[in-house]
Amino acid sequence: MHVIVNGRRRHVRTVAFDARRNAVLLIEQRLLPHRFRIVAARDYRATARAIRDMVVRGAPAIAAAAAYGLAQGARAFRGRSPAAFARHLDRVTRVLLAARPTAVDPANALRAVRAALVAGPTVAARQRLALAAARAFADASVADCAAIGRHGARLIHTGARVLTHCNAGWLACVDLGTATAPLYAAHARGRRFQVYCDETRPRSQGAKLTAWELAQEGIPHRIIADNAAGHFMQRGEIDLVIVGGDRVLGRTGDVANKIGTYTAAVLARRHRVPFYVAIPLSSLDWTLRSGRQIPIEDRAESEVLGAWGVRRRGGVPVYVRIAGAAARARNPAFDVTPPELITGIITPCGIFPPRQLWRRRRRLGWKPA
Amino acid sequence: MHVIVNGRRRHVRTVAFDARRNAVLLIEQRLLPHRFRIVAARDYRATARAIRDMVVRGAPAIAAAAAYGLAQGARAFRGRSPAAFARHLDRVTRVLLAARPTAVDPANALRAVRAALVAGPTVAARQRLALAAARAFADASVADCAAIGRHGARLIHTGARVLTHCNAGWLACVDLGTATAPLYAAHARGRRFQVYCDETRPRSQGAKLTAWELAQEGIPHRIIADNAAGHFMQRGEIDLVIVGGDRVLGRTGDVANKIGTYTAAVLARRHRVPFYVAIPLSSLDWTLRSGRQIPIEDRAESEVLGAWGVRRRGGVPVYVRIAGAAARARNPAFDVTPPELITGIITPCGIFPPRQLWRRRRRLGWKPA
Repeated sequence: MHVIVNGRRRHVRTVAFDARRNAVLLIEQRLLPHRFRIVAARDYRATARAIRDMVVRGAPAIAAAAAYGLAQGARAFRGRSPAAFARHLDRVTRVLLAARPTAVDPANALRAVRAALVAGPTVAARQRLALAAARAFADASVADCAAIGRHGARLIHTGARVLTHCNAGWLACVDLGTATAPLYAAHARGRRFQVYCDETRPRSQGAKLTAWELAQEGIPHRIIADNAAGHFMQRGEIDLVIVGGDRVLGRTGDVANKIGTYTAAVLARRHRVPFYVAIPLSSLDWTLRSGRQIPIEDRAESEVLGAWGVRRRGGVPVYVRIAGAAARARNPAFDVTPPELITGIITPCGIFPPRQLWRRRRRLGWKPA
Repeated sequence: MHVIVNGRRRHVRTVAFDARRNAVLLIEQRLLPHRFRIVAARDYRATARAIRDMVVRGAPAIAAAAAYGLAQGARAFRGRSPAAFARHLDRVTRVLLAARPTAVDPANALRAVRAALVAGPTVAARQRLALAAARAFADASVADCAAIGRHGARLIHTGARVLTHCNAGWLACVDLGTATAPLYAAHARGRRFQVYCDETRPRSQGAKLTAWELAQEGIPHRIIADNAAGHFMQRGEIDLVIVGGDRVLGRTGDVANKIGTYTAAVLARRHRVPFYVAIPLSSLDWTLRSGRQIPIEDRAESEVLGAWGVRRRGGVPVYVRIAGAAARARNPAFDVTPPELITGIITPCGIFPPRQLWRRRRRLGWKPA
């Protein structure tokens, strides 16, 4: 998507590769929305550190970063011994996997790149294939988001007021985003609409990232406290909700996503506001048989007890404690929205009612065990 | 209620009067929960400034502060001329009213004190009556909260998990609080329960004030992001919701309260969790005929776009900007919860289903026009 830097609008991807410098290029997301900076990870260990330290975040984005990191590591190998190259690749893979050990998308990305490069007859050929495979992986991710945008754009009419939650935007992907892709596609078709961004406490990704993204594209929007979404629905000021999904159960249609998604879905149901979840196929989980089986991670109490922000324009974010020094919090990171509250799941293959995912499983990439 | 200062537990009211120094004593609430300090407003203008600048907040608390401020102003008058004294009282009243011009409770408090003092035959007698009336007003406010506590305590059993929103606690009243009074009463009766405090963005009164209050009394509690309440209800971890009410329509049972109250009520209904609103009789509005007639104030966008907190333990709160410099917000301060979502209104006169307020209006202080 676009970024406005010093008044100039330029196109940029969240994750890219500079072949000349053998560097993975990443938007330094921890500085957003206060500063825009692209950092170059100059070797695979630096790429792994950037993934671990959340310079880059969001499942599709860290998957692409891992894929490029593997290509980067492969290209740095000096030598012609296929055996030594293979040992080197194992080491690079281990380091990249360890950066976010519980995430499934980087593991899939690394597997895809490794599967592609074995076709090369020499070390040099394998190095070239690794980069080609990483590029293909990132491009496929962008193509998926573009397809989500094409399918979802038909939901967004001129005059619509759309609620979003958290950031399932292009900053979480390689480009375009999942929940945001329909917005960008509709905007590109000339439709004029307004977005309400839930600030999305406790990490405030809606206030920080989604609002910033929309501003770069010139899409009218307002940030609201998560508490205000119900009020606006009650007043008839929200026509549609689109959110992302961290894990969607293919068998049941349950959606695990950022804490507060369930609340937005309950409110939408009460007010008969359509509620959509936009995901790439990699977010489909075909194994779990109930939403209650989805593990809900508890994150640090400090997230709820304080906030990150800048004291002056363009400053570096600092942490402030909102609650008292002795206060305690509970901080579940995700919640589970049941299928009866969801109008449709927007995928690169089309929009499906959540309970029809299983029936359409072959089309959606399910493979027999 | 109690405050723990330097390890010692002492009893304190939110608003009190020091007759010897002719000073209104107020907890400096803008420093809470990071520092506890009682400030003395040494003349009625200082009291008015403290009300205006939100050293003290909450309808019952600012009403008591205004009542004491009037007594304070009356007592500072030097002279014996009833006419000059009356002019002085008018001036004091004007200054105190102007501190929070849209609030109805201070105006009622000032009227009550003025009505009481006219019985005095001399200026000196009127000065004494003014203080007695202010004290009676504050004591009646405490008695009302105590009655709310007595009625509401029966809702809270050992093992209960209670959700609160915002701060309708003793810091908003003279003592005990409204929504918190049942908690304190049940705790005093030896019941052991747990409270979840919605942090209550954007001003975070739940995280800052309610959690601090409960800590002083030793009531187990956890702060949660407003986004998490639905998740905990879904998991069966909340048994009861008690909130305050800024304005309750006696004719319909609609409740205007802090933004997010409506969302909590919608969630409670979905999960069949009882939802109660605790109010003094002064919050009953007998004139409006529909919740849609209640004006909803929009507060500063900066509240949503940032947060106040301290950078180190015991520090002075600073503002940090969470959203980007150019971001915009919408910030409705209140929402309206319809009666069908409310189990009961807890008043000093008992607990009533919201739609029965009108039938019980004589008992609830309604006067024929």
